[in-house]
Amino acid sequence: MNVEILTIGNEILIGKTQDTNSNWMAKRIAKYGHRLKRITTIGDDLNEISSTIKNILARNPDMIITTGGLGPTFDDMTLEGIAKGLEREIELNQHAFNSIKKAYENATRRGILKLEGMTKERKKMAYLPQGSTPLPNTVGTAPGVKLTEGHITIFILPGVPAEMKSMFRNVITPLLKERKGKFIEKGFIFTGIGESQIAPYITKLEHEYPKLWIKTHPRIGLSVEVELSITCFNVDNGEKLVEEALTKAKDIVHNLNGKIKTK
Amino acid sequence: MNVEILTIGNEILIGKTQDTNSNWMAKRIAKYGHRLKRITTIGDDLNEISSTIKNILARNPDMIITTGGLGPTFDDMTLEGIAKGLEREIELNQHAFNSIKKAYENATRRGILKLEGMTKERKKMAYLPQGSTPLPNTVGTAPGVKLTEGHITIFILPGVPAEMKSMFRNVITPLLKERKGKFIEKGFIFTGIGESQIAPYITKLEHEYPKLWIKTHPRIGLSVEVELSITCFNVDNGEKLVEEALTKAKDIVHNLNGKIKTK
Repeated sequence: MNVEILTIGNEILIGKTQDTNSNWMAKRIAKYGHRLKRITTIGDDLNEISSTIKNILARNPDMIITTGGLGPTFDDMTLEGIAKGLEREIELNQHAFNSIKKAYENATRRGILKLEGMTKERKKMAYLPQGSTPLPNTVGTAPGVKLTEGHITIFILPGVPAEMKSMFRNVITPLLKERKGKFIEKGFIFTGIGESQIAPYITKLEHEYPKLWIKTHPRIGLSVEVELSITCFNVDNGEKLVEEALTKAKDIVHNLNGKIKTK
Repeated sequence: MNVEILTIGNEILIGKTQDTNSNWMAKRIAKYGHRLKRITTIGDDLNEISSTIKNILARNPDMIITTGGLGPTFDDMTLEGIAKGLEREIELNQHAFNSIKKAYENATRRGILKLEGMTKERKKMAYLPQGSTPLPNTVGTAPGVKLTEGHITIFILPGVPAEMKSMFRNVITPLLKERKGKFIEKGFIFTGIGESQIAPYITKLEHEYPKLWIKTHPRIGLSVEVELSITCFNVDNGEKLVEEALTKAKDIVHNLNGKIKTK
């Protein structure tokens, strides 16, 4: 599957919050052999959300995951923005309404919150784009949403990491597993030779293994420590090919008098 | 100024690397009163880079900052991708060539690297889109690039954080300061009342101060700890307005029997 992530929140664009959600999700998407093609971060702006979701749909991924902007305040406008982008109405979803109501009842019973009952702001979180399936939020109050648009599955998740993670594990991980592909990632760190010195040999190795993606990353300026990684998505015999290429890459480093730091 | 960031690197999309560069830059862009409108992360793919840069240009920001993909290996294709997106040729830039040559001479003299001379891979880093001004890399080898396309300034920076930061400080910070706007951010954390309980009062406060952006973020699921922040970009009398709104926001929290944790 090809996947795109859309992160929504002004707090990320002013640098107040570091987006750690995307990295957490990216790891899991790759782990099950799926390709995250793009991460887009935009602000809490209705037109920005709707036009961006249209652009993502036009690129035709299999799955879109959004995070952020599901809360009770008026600047949480993800649901409305996505509905607009999909040219759907938003409507009160009774399941969502009931789960929000129950979450607040539990919170007031346990003394965490004082205000009882479904206020206008709480009810707002139950207005979902037409055709939505609400996803229970076991950690917070705002439900997530699952939608389909043609063959594309859209998941709308909260931005609070604990809530996002819990929903991702419950709903998205099973789907990633069900349509599991194979992702392999191996590598090592070497010192003593630079990226540019090893580059022609790695290019040759890549030509020898066209299905593998062999990449070097300098870890410190001036390439005194370089990480080499070999990855592949859904390659027959991938394990064997990666192991072979890895051995050859290590030989290259040794022949150039480099040192391998980790194996 | 309106700014967009474009992050280029497969390692981010497979979750191997957490993109910390964007957050670091976002803070500084906001600090000097400029608006970061979007962060886009894509992989090392020529067509993806060129089509994305075209899309960003179509949104007409004042500044575009890209990071990543400037190294000597064949999968570093940012310069070629951006040239393609701008419909320009890439050409050997003599200043870039000389600075790369010098960086490698220094590195071999100091014993950090062994291979001397300008190999094909090292020379590759000096092929810049037509009209480029190379930006010296005082920490690593790959120079950055400054370009203009109409009124839009494009900065192409390395992905290694130390190299990116050094170049940003030397070249972009002065420009952000020169065209400085005013960004104000104040806030506090409160407990005991939830986001949805305070929401109607905050909405009222927002109507009273339409130029300020007043937002609450739950910090833990179920809103037991909420952060309130008040921000504004380039508002006359902004300091005074923010202070006023902040005092009123604190009164709201106290009146609802909430507790303010930090001031």
